[in-house]
Amino acid sequence: ALLCEPSPEPHVAVIFTSVRLADGTAGDAGLADEVGYAEMADRMDALSRAQPGYLGIDSARGADGVGITVSYWATEADAVAWKQVAEHLGAQRLGRERWYRAYTTRVANVTRSYSWQRDAQRG
Amino acid sequence: ALLCEPSPEPHVAVIFTSVRLADGTAGDAGLADEVGYAEMADRMDALSRAQPGYLGIDSARGADGVGITVSYWATEADAVAWKQVAEHLGAQRLGRERWYRAYTTRVANVTRSYSWQRDAQRG
Repeated sequence: ALLCEPSPEPHVAVIFTSVRLADGTAGDAGLADEVGYAEMADRMDALSRAQPGYLGIDSARGADGVGITVSYWATEADAVAWKQVAEHLGAQRLGRERWYRAYTTRVANVTRSYSWQRDAQRG
Repeated sequence: ALLCEPSPEPHVAVIFTSVRLADGTAGDAGLADEVGYAEMADRMDALSRAQPGYLGIDSARGADGVGITVSYWATEADAVAWKQVAEHLGAQRLGRERWYRAYTTRVANVTRSYSWQRDAQRG
């Protein structure tokens, strides 16, 4: 599925909003080091799924370079532990060096959720 | 700025994840009713900014149709009030009829946040 199912409350959401660096090539609307970034994103995605308390990740990035990734964790301690995983710390450092113009991380306690999905009959 | 500045805690984040309907035209990778959707999104953006307790909105959508919008509110009551604004209720109904394949809304209390931004000197 393209979206995470909501986990039972309470749980923790880490909301990571970011702006990627532009490629910088004149006339190029691309983002900096797209291949290196995509490889690291895949690696971090796989690594996070193996962490204790991992519940899921939703992610989206638009052509303007603005991205939002929300990861869901059983407890705040689980979210903090993932932030401190050595390989993840290395990825965060590379992010500041190569890929991001700015980012913000927010830690939040999810108190309720609701979902809707189109009837499969109606496509 | 492309990203919201974090507001002082505590405040409330409403995390809206969604998948847009595809256009459905053979060979067309576009999303359904792109013009109508964009007009409504602009209208709701303007309307939400005028609500009591509004703190900000971050939004991103990728080419796969997955989007994440996070709106920030002073209190949970402010977030609930925005959900119930008549014109917004109409937009939610149209979303189910025309634009979305699925969505989830999560209400969360933001407990802490931190930001990083590239030194302006280094571009």
